[in-house]
Amino acid sequence: MDKSKTDLFINSERMKDDFEVLAEFGATGEGGVHRPTFSPAHLKARDWFRDQAHAAGFEVKSDGAGNQSAILYCGPEPGSKTLLLGSHLDSVPNGGRFDGALGIVAAMESLRIVKENHIKLPFNLEVIDFTDEEGTLVGLLGSSALSGSLARETLHNPRGGREALQEGLNAAGITEDSILSARRDPHGLTGYLELHIEQGSRLLNARASIGVVTVVNGIGSYRFTFVGRADHAGTTTLTDRLDAAQGACSLALSVRRLALVGFPGSTVNVGNMIFSPGAFNIVPERVQTWVEYRSSNSKVLNQLEASLLERARAEARRFSLELEIESGGKHEPSPMSEAVQACIIEAAEKLSLKHLPLASGAGHDAQSLAGICPAGMIFVPSEGGASHSPREFTHWEDCQNGANVLLRTVLNMGDHDSHPS
Amino acid sequence: MDKSKTDLFINSERMKDDFEVLAEFGATGEGGVHRPTFSPAHLKARDWFRDQAHAAGFEVKSDGAGNQSAILYCGPEPGSKTLLLGSHLDSVPNGGRFDGALGIVAAMESLRIVKENHIKLPFNLEVIDFTDEEGTLVGLLGSSALSGSLARETLHNPRGGREALQEGLNAAGITEDSILSARRDPHGLTGYLELHIEQGSRLLNARASIGVVTVVNGIGSYRFTFVGRADHAGTTTLTDRLDAAQGACSLALSVRRLALVGFPGSTVNVGNMIFSPGAFNIVPERVQTWVEYRSSNSKVLNQLEASLLERARAEARRFSLELEIESGGKHEPSPMSEAVQACIIEAAEKLSLKHLPLASGAGHDAQSLAGICPAGMIFVPSEGGASHSPREFTHWEDCQNGANVLLRTVLNMGDHDSHPS
Repeated sequence: MDKSKTDLFINSERMKDDFEVLAEFGATGEGGVHRPTFSPAHLKARDWFRDQAHAAGFEVKSDGAGNQSAILYCGPEPGSKTLLLGSHLDSVPNGGRFDGALGIVAAMESLRIVKENHIKLPFNLEVIDFTDEEGTLVGLLGSSALSGSLARETLHNPRGGREALQEGLNAAGITEDSILSARRDPHGLTGYLELHIEQGSRLLNARASIGVVTVVNGIGSYRFTFVGRADHAGTTTLTDRLDAAQGACSLALSVRRLALVGFPGSTVNVGNMIFSPGAFNIVPERVQTWVEYRSSNSKVLNQLEASLLERARAEARRFSLELEIESGGKHEPSPMSEAVQACIIEAAEKLSLKHLPLASGAGHDAQSLAGICPAGMIFVPSEGGASHSPREFTHWEDCQNGANVLLRTVLNMGDHDSHPS
Repeated sequence: MDKSKTDLFINSERMKDDFEVLAEFGATGEGGVHRPTFSPAHLKARDWFRDQAHAAGFEVKSDGAGNQSAILYCGPEPGSKTLLLGSHLDSVPNGGRFDGALGIVAAMESLRIVKENHIKLPFNLEVIDFTDEEGTLVGLLGSSALSGSLARETLHNPRGGREALQEGLNAAGITEDSILSARRDPHGLTGYLELHIEQGSRLLNARASIGVVTVVNGIGSYRFTFVGRADHAGTTTLTDRLDAAQGACSLALSVRRLALVGFPGSTVNVGNMIFSPGAFNIVPERVQTWVEYRSSNSKVLNQLEASLLERARAEARRFSLELEIESGGKHEPSPMSEAVQACIIEAAEKLSLKHLPLASGAGHDAQSLAGICPAGMIFVPSEGGASHSPREFTHWEDCQNGANVLLRTVLNMGDHDSHPS
């Protein structure tokens, strides 16, 4: 690496200003943010992104899926390949202010440093703010559209419901057809990098500053609806009932046990149940049960899925209920590029930061990108492991370290790209 | 009993005409009715009641709680005591056409027969259509106002919400103050009788035509909220979670077991759960769990309540959750008058109808009246035990038998009243 490049660091004050302004959009009283996809607060954060990119002198673009980009032409020519630095500005309902936002401000700051120092790289740089990473509407919507892995059927049966999707698209001025047109030619991409909070406690437990992500765990989900019979709760004896709640509740307990016993390291979650008709004095006729499962290993993910389906059917039989099964889709585990991991490790070591290889339990846009180009992720510690919550917190020093590793990884990738070993 | 009285029967055709006209108000396509309190369909049914009463030559009255009455002065003098024959014209949302309506048409028909045959009784007769039995607004609103058991606080925190109550009262031209003024002097009442469908399967199972209600079960309810911690479902290991769903679901299974094993004949129902935040990928932080319990015995009801509370606390401890407890109130079991039960049994036997003593699992206006005068209820079989549903059905022969038992019970009560044994 040039001597000039080894002295480059991000401007921590400027990045912190960006971070704090961004945390105001949809701020909750408790230090978190509420920025579901295309909500008013999210639209304001998107405006802010374009304003900042313009102010920094980057080209601003957006695609048919609502992904927004700030482009720095630091490559040999405008048509050179692009290294994408991404994350997202949407949040889960009542989420934290670091998830997604940190990756965006660190990427924006990295481009500013490259521009201000007139660094030439073998590729252009593009900050990309992906649409609906968190899944208010679909989940990984923008990145899967860009990578070509989004199926039209997914848009017809989105996890947030058709109505929410249509309202969201109207608010953002995009359409189903435009989303599917957002597919990018993989030949134009040299790679993908993302800085993110860990959302777990492994870095803290290991007293490490930097996580080098080896794989983004696979994930799948189902809506199981147990169907019994609505009866008067005062006149129907317990043994005469077809009580949908019994099947749903038994499933919620048994899937946890089955994951703990049979699938160590994998996770399951029953995140929601919707009772119908939902009255004190009526036996529940229908209980919709939302089940999610994850694993870092493709074979284990499939075995876990089969066990969940078998369990749901067994609970329905046990309580004489009908069972309706709707798949919420499945993403296979996505290994990160070993070459990119090597560049991240080199950066962390140069900065004397203790690093740890780890699997990402959470889903990320990187898993969409991993299918079409070398992708890598840098994690920084989450205090208490908290995330998707206003309690989410990362010390600023860790954010700064992560951003410096991101910047240096970009430079390392440039070096390796121009001087293949 | 006079020879003349023993040959009296209701006019089945006329009563069936009434029943069928009434089933048209708020008729759903499926054979049920949708007549929530003071809805347009309910107001029409109430108009019909007054028209029929006028046409039959009864005096028509209404009180400050919206209860409507048709009065026949068949007693020794206008100021004689009154035997009330009641039920209700409102329905649950998308309910059945028998619940409430059958009791009203049978009572109206009984008064017509007494009038047409110039029967003299030791009391006057009054058909009473009680307001909001089903609880669109408050539940047992009219009967608890009449009996003086309605507290002003209940009107301030009604189960249907303040807004619905205010809208309903406006539609019916009554007020909170007028409701509380509807209290009647118990000294003016000689008793209360009601014919109703069973809403269960015990009569059918026993091949009996007439149920002689011994008690209206007591009922209570709680909203238990289990509080854990919202965490990312992909990054938080199963053992690190404080998952509110585990406590709620374990409670739903265990309260059923505890009622089955420890409280035979009592019922419990977990009719609703509300998850928060309620997302696939977030560990549930709060799960509100609606639990209702019923028993025919006051002591058992209290023991069941204590067991439910103990169980809820134990589940919270087991999963390291906090527990918030809100009581939804409690009504003690209401025994029916033994003297009235004897008159019902005498009537059924005279008509050679097999009868069965049973507790009412459902709540009824009779439980309000039991506090101020001798009260009794006559049940007829419900096909399939279905109720609060368009599936609700009772064969007309059973309706007719029930109405004849009601008429004869009135006459029996007259005999016993004038010739105390």
